[in-house]
Formats: sequence, structure tokens, C-alpha cells
Amino acid sequence: MNSKIVEGAVAQFSKLPGIGKKTALRLVLHLLKVDEQNVYDFSKALLKLKTDLHFCSVCHNISDETICSICKDTGRNHEMVCIVEDLRDVIAIENTNQFRGVYHVLGGLISPVDGIGPEDLNIESLFVRFQRNEIKELIFALAATMEGDTTTFYITRRLNGSDIKASTIARGISVGGELEYADEITLGRSILGRVPYKL
Amino acid sequence: MNSKIVEGAVAQFSKLPGIGKKTALRLVLHLLKVDEQNVYDFSKALLKLKTDLHFCSVCHNISDETICSICKDTGRNHEMVCIVEDLRDVIAIENTNQFRGVYHVLGGLISPVDGIGPEDLNIESLFVRFQRNEIKELIFALAATMEGDTTTFYITRRLNGSDIKASTIARGISVGGELEYADEITLGRSILGRVPYKL
Repeated sequence: MNSKIVEGAVAQFSKLPGIGKKTALRLVLHLLKVDEQNVYDFSKALLKLKTDLHFCSVCHNISDETICSICKDTGRNHEMVCIVEDLRDVIAIENTNQFRGVYHVLGGLISPVDGIGPEDLNIESLFVRFQRNEIKELIFALAATMEGDTTTFYITRRLNGSDIKASTIARGISVGGELEYADEITLGRSILGRVPYKL
Repeated sequence: MNSKIVEGAVAQFSKLPGIGKKTALRLVLHLLKVDEQNVYDFSKALLKLKTDLHFCSVCHNISDETICSICKDTGRNHEMVCIVEDLRDVIAIENTNQFRGVYHVLGGLISPVDGIGPEDLNIESLFVRFQRNEIKELIFALAATMEGDTTTFYITRRLNGSDIKASTIARGISVGGELEYADEITLGRSILGRVPYKL
């Protein structure tokens, strides 16, 4: 290429997940065309992610303040805690409008293959919340993968002997889904986890 | 969402072409995880696009200096000018290693539908290059679209009466392409534009 500056910007975009060299170049060419103010705003928004953003000291959700708006909300049930992997899960669950408890964001899942252990995640602070008797019920909303199951197992194992109610979100055929297109494991689990039919 | 700062960054990413809200959020979450220095470098690379980048005063290609490295290269044929839409075309043609002339980057194509006229493009500076007798041959490497054809037509029309050689890059079946999968217009053009077979 002809310009070290463009090359530099393309290299930065290429570092983002799912963005290759060609897409990065397309994005940079777009930025070349837009107003200087737009690029300045973009640049500032990125910096702010590191300078101004905090993680909630209670649930580790991202927050503009020390305690996030969900943990501050007195209208929510603070004794029921939903355990999720990251911010996207919080957003997804909030969008359902079905959950009025609070969250605990682990920031990842236990994955021995990737060298991620419990000490790399926000797990100790969850036990601090237990010890303070803040929590009566735990809902695990983690991915239905080996890592998700391992994480759920690790946490429930350490809770052994306490009287906290623990549950995982239901796995099964998605609403509107056809049986013939479901994978066997999901279908198998949804038969094992069948629920009584209410008239 | 829970954070105005994250929302702001997501909004900035969503402005980029081909990036929706979900992808933007994924990119922002990625940036939350990486080192502060990486985000700082990213932010700086963006700013540099507007503060340090120049366009070549001869061919309008992007350049870190007043005149780009292609226009400076005395080993190239400066009388043969390839007309392209933007930087990506320059990169694509340079990658073929088949062209040893110089370029003229229009910065777009004439498109009455989008309200883009010749005065919005780098066309006048091309005629300045003509008037200085710098150019003997023009090669139009524009998209095979209505806009590309209109732009080629406009420029060649204004050249009427001069003795500049003008050509367009060949349109036809791509090398290795099967006839049955080619669209009719391409196939039609490639029959009309058939070339003598050399033994």
C-alpha cells in the first residue's frame, strides 16, 4: 500500500474479531470520506471505553458509576441472582422482561483447555455475596457447552451444604422449532427435562 | 443498555458500513477486554487518518506526503494514466504487477441518481494534466456499471479532438470461468469484444 497511515489504521481494524484485511480497508476508506468531526468522535468514544468505564463493584456488569443501575434498582429482587458469562447475556435477558432479580457477571467461563481457571473469573466476589447472606436463589444462565457446564458444576459444588436454591435455565426445543431440525442432544435433554402439562 | 459509554462506542461502530448493532456490540466488548494501550493505539490511528494523511496533489491517491510514491517513481511510465474510482482499485491493479504507468483517482463515479456530478470528482485536475501534455494514453479501469460507463463517456467526450489514446480494461469471462455460469451481458460483451486468436 501507499500510505503507512492507512496501513496503520487497517492493521488496527484487522485486530478486531471477525474483521479481515479487506473489510478493514473498506472501513478505513469509509472513514477517509466522512467528516473530521465524526472520526474525532469515534476516536474519543474508544478512549472513553478505557478511561471512563467502570465495572459494577457488586455484579461486575459494566457501568458508568461504581454500582450499576440494576444493582441500584430497589424495585428488583436482590436475593435472586442470575449468573451470566458477559454483558451480552445481561442485555439478552433484560430484553425478555422476564427477570426481576439481579446479576453476577463472571467475565468468562472456566475452560481448562484455554487455561482459564476460577481465579481468572469473578467467582470469589460471588462467594463474598453468599457469605454476606445477600443471595437466596441462583439461576445459572450459562452457555450449554462443556465450559458452561463445568462452571455451573464448580460453583454449585462449592455451595454444597448451603441452603441456596440453584437452578439452570431450561434447555429444550426452541419455541416454534420443529423437532426434525433439532439436534439429538437438545432433543434428548428436552425429553429428560420434560415438564408436566398444565391444563 | 446499562452504560452510556458503551452505547456511545456501539453507536460509533454502527455507523460504519456493513456493521450492525450486534456486531458493533461484539467489537466493543472485545475492546473492553484488550489492554488500554491497544485501544489507545486504535484511537490514535483513527485520528491520524484525518490529521496526517494527504492526498497526492497529482493523482489524488492517498499519500503520507504531498506527492505519492507512485507519482514520484521515475521508473514508471508517466504518460500512461489509469483512471480508477478509489484507492482499492489502485491496490488491486498494483497487485497484478501488470501496469507500469501512473494513476488518476476520481474519488467516485458520476451518478445523477445520487446527485454526484463531474464537479464532485477529481476530474478537473485530470484535464489540467492533459493540458500540460503530461498524458499520452488513458486506460479506464472503472466499474462495468451505468455509473462507470457514464464517467468514461463524460471524460472521453471532453477529450474529443485531442490525440490521446483511450481504452477501457477488457470485459469478458473471467479466467477459469465456465460459460454456463456467466451472466448474459458479460457473455454478450465478451463475444462482441472477441480477440484474434494467436498461435
